[in-house]
Amino acid sequence: MAAVSIDLEMKRKVNQKFVDKAMKYSPELIEKIIKPVDIVTVKENGQTEHRADVSEMGNIALKKGDSIVLDFGDHQVGYFTMRLKSVGSPQDAPAYLRLKFGEIAKELTEDSSEYDGWISRSWIQEEFLHLDVLPQEITLPRRYAFRYLEIYAIDTSMKFQVVIEEASCRAVASVDMDALPKLPGVSDQISRMDQVSLRTLQNCMQDVFEDGPKRDRRLWIGDLRLQALANYATFKNLGLVKRCMYLFAGLTREDGAIGACLFTEPEYLVDDTFLFDYSLFFVSILKDYYHASGELAVVEELWDSAYRQIELSRKRLDENYVIQDDEGFWCFVDWTDGLNKQASAQAIYIYTLNAAIELTEILGKDRMKMELEQERNRCIEGAKKCLWDEESQVFISGKDRQISYASQVWMILAGVLPMDESRALINRIIRMHPEKGMVTPYMNHHFVEALLLCGEKDKAMDYMTYYWGGMVNQGADTFWEMYNPENPEESPYGSSMVNSYCHAWSCTPAYILREHL
Amino acid sequence: MAAVSIDLEMKRKVNQKFVDKAMKYSPELIEKIIKPVDIVTVKENGQTEHRADVSEMGNIALKKGDSIVLDFGDHQVGYFTMRLKSVGSPQDAPAYLRLKFGEIAKELTEDSSEYDGWISRSWIQEEFLHLDVLPQEITLPRRYAFRYLEIYAIDTSMKFQVVIEEASCRAVASVDMDALPKLPGVSDQISRMDQVSLRTLQNCMQDVFEDGPKRDRRLWIGDLRLQALANYATFKNLGLVKRCMYLFAGLTREDGAIGACLFTEPEYLVDDTFLFDYSLFFVSILKDYYHASGELAVVEELWDSAYRQIELSRKRLDENYVIQDDEGFWCFVDWTDGLNKQASAQAIYIYTLNAAIELTEILGKDRMKMELEQERNRCIEGAKKCLWDEESQVFISGKDRQISYASQVWMILAGVLPMDESRALINRIIRMHPEKGMVTPYMNHHFVEALLLCGEKDKAMDYMTYYWGGMVNQGADTFWEMYNPENPEESPYGSSMVNSYCHAWSCTPAYILREHL
Repeated sequence: MAAVSIDLEMKRKVNQKFVDKAMKYSPELIEKIIKPVDIVTVKENGQTEHRADVSEMGNIALKKGDSIVLDFGDHQVGYFTMRLKSVGSPQDAPAYLRLKFGEIAKELTEDSSEYDGWISRSWIQEEFLHLDVLPQEITLPRRYAFRYLEIYAIDTSMKFQVVIEEASCRAVASVDMDALPKLPGVSDQISRMDQVSLRTLQNCMQDVFEDGPKRDRRLWIGDLRLQALANYATFKNLGLVKRCMYLFAGLTREDGAIGACLFTEPEYLVDDTFLFDYSLFFVSILKDYYHASGELAVVEELWDSAYRQIELSRKRLDENYVIQDDEGFWCFVDWTDGLNKQASAQAIYIYTLNAAIELTEILGKDRMKMELEQERNRCIEGAKKCLWDEESQVFISGKDRQISYASQVWMILAGVLPMDESRALINRIIRMHPEKGMVTPYMNHHFVEALLLCGEKDKAMDYMTYYWGGMVNQGADTFWEMYNPENPEESPYGSSMVNSYCHAWSCTPAYILREHL
Repeated sequence: MAAVSIDLEMKRKVNQKFVDKAMKYSPELIEKIIKPVDIVTVKENGQTEHRADVSEMGNIALKKGDSIVLDFGDHQVGYFTMRLKSVGSPQDAPAYLRLKFGEIAKELTEDSSEYDGWISRSWIQEEFLHLDVLPQEITLPRRYAFRYLEIYAIDTSMKFQVVIEEASCRAVASVDMDALPKLPGVSDQISRMDQVSLRTLQNCMQDVFEDGPKRDRRLWIGDLRLQALANYATFKNLGLVKRCMYLFAGLTREDGAIGACLFTEPEYLVDDTFLFDYSLFFVSILKDYYHASGELAVVEELWDSAYRQIELSRKRLDENYVIQDDEGFWCFVDWTDGLNKQASAQAIYIYTLNAAIELTEILGKDRMKMELEQERNRCIEGAKKCLWDEESQVFISGKDRQISYASQVWMILAGVLPMDESRALINRIIRMHPEKGMVTPYMNHHFVEALLLCGEKDKAMDYMTYYWGGMVNQGADTFWEMYNPENPEESPYGSSMVNSYCHAWSCTPAYILREHL
């Protein structure tokens, strides 16, 4: 899907009071100096093997064409510093180095010149450095997300070689997983899955909740919702969630629509991308925040912003209270290619109506609560009437009556069916194994949540072990943006080189393990 | 000639008093802020054409694959700063830019990935920049030598483009040619040649006399000798010459041998490269300095260092007082491929004996003067006996009795023959047009000096117009390291991409025009 949203005419609205409040909750980042733990070789298949003890680093002289790969032991987000010297005859030319940072080792085997994806190649973490004078200590100005770093000598000269004397990463995050107790009474496998989740979440918790510290490094509301849930169950950093909510509410389109993402640099700015589901999720986030914090004042202050998303989304309802589909309908749900979003959107609208109803109750808005309940019921009826396929006994989506996991999962999460019917439905769709599957951990998370809601705890656990455990088995230190167990190379961007291997929406096992199991 | 000198066992000797004196003469660099004067297109053949007025810069939005070439009006040496912004939708990815700095426009047409020369590709002035946040003002940390700068957008994203709002170069040099009066009463062509000479010299006069501000950016004694002569005739910056002389004398091999070049960063250090001719030229430089400054104290202080070069070189004399040739004989003379250096070395030894004799006279060292005169005469006899070919009536060099321009030129400059015979010889070699020609402006300078010494003033002027004027006709703003009128693409390094187009040893027209014409 080579598509981006561009709306150069878009007018923005700023609620300065909200933005100022968000500033109050700017986190102080925790910093740790991390040293490499090993010198490795990355094989063609992306596997690493030990090459030399890290204490040998200062004895490895790089001449033209040589390289050294440093393993920093775990996924890091931070700033890289190295001290280099030259050995041999005097340095009679600049040293010319290429640095490649990889969240996973496989990234180091990829040739960026072959990148042909449709999003920017600028996301590939590769730098070219000329060093005129050695010895030199250099700190690169950019932040990287990486465990592995390859330093490749494009050229030195016939007279000198380059030695990396010291290397370190000043790792940054808003929280510190080392301060959390390990999950008690679980298997090593589950414990590892939990640690990888926590690492993912920690490394995405920066100045705001980021979707991924490699890419896009910014606040997306879809990711935020899941991050916030995992955070409540673990780090309990309420300030950062509050900060992000106030940013979204403070920086909207002129009509009050909450953006899919926003930028924090060079200025706080909402993007010109709007997704039906993402805007609505602001309601769920506010509801979840209340449950985690009990802060009624926040709900009071942000209710209007939340409700505005319902109002704007409501316009898509047809006379049957069904969300209208069309070609230009922007709703995310999953990266599954060709996925029709109508039924999921319908369900997500109901799902957020449920959240809104809860909020009206909290706020004592009885009349509105009644109206929303009525609307919710009509939407449920609409879904059953227009999006249910009697013959196959599943929800269908779009004019081509597409059957997908997503539609069933979201209808279940929206509570459209009673629990026994939901359980039957989820087992039916599993048996059907429709072509329109689930490729993101984000969608897979909702599948697991749906299983749990249907009382299928064992299946939920088995699936988590299959899916997130599959990434762990492939050596993941953090959970990936994309993982299709049937096609691990898959990318929504035309090339996996720009895939993010530490992605917020993949961090939920830590939440599920603590809240549901 | 893929050869570099490496002597890892070499012992160095430091005369701290001399080094301290050199520090006293560290120049303060003159800085000027230079703005681009035009936006141009560089054609396949390296020619430029006007593309847009420089005031249009801020209206040119670079998307993926776009570029802009800024023309800074003349050859600059300095630090580059630009202010960039993004236009379009918000900047949702880093901007990824490639900057190519060209002393001449042709460099911008070259693909660095195709470089296959034997010296380091790190000399190619090309940088890759990721800019995470725009707008941004960025000053690159390295110094560049350039007139043209191409900024190429390797990638932006589908959402935004990059605009260069401002660009400037903080140009640096020890001297300022704008402070010099123009040469009076000469043709426009000669005046231009003079200006190009001055620009070349100015831009090579930095913290020390550099050979070239693109490459190698360091003090070579062969270049220094000619720079010093041109400087006496123009800028008259005696301190910088003194600084360089004290550096060479203060930083030697253990046996007192003066290096061919030395480094000033990260510390003052003599290289492990020694060239027969280059070491000896220290004697000439000292003699020239005395004539320019009249500073007897400097001669008194540096005489021992100078004389030591004679002593060390003397060891190569055989029983006929002829310099012995062998495979490992390092003597520069010229980059002409396959040039045998024996006769030139013999002549240069005599040439520097002449300088040494002058210095003994200045110092009142009568006995030594007599001894050196005797030695010089024996060397002349040796040259005539062993290196003169009766049949062809020219000097020959090496066991294969090679005939070259270089041998004749240096024998003439050494005063081996009376003036009339010298004149006959130089005209004879011109008629013979031997295969071993002259490819560097350095060697061509000596040819012109030889013509002048023989009283062939018109021929000298014609040749200068042909040779240096040829570079001017090709659009040179500064004179090049290499120029073979018959093969302008020639490079001693296997690829012209690393050629230096502002090279100290090419700056001598300014000297010759003032001192000899």
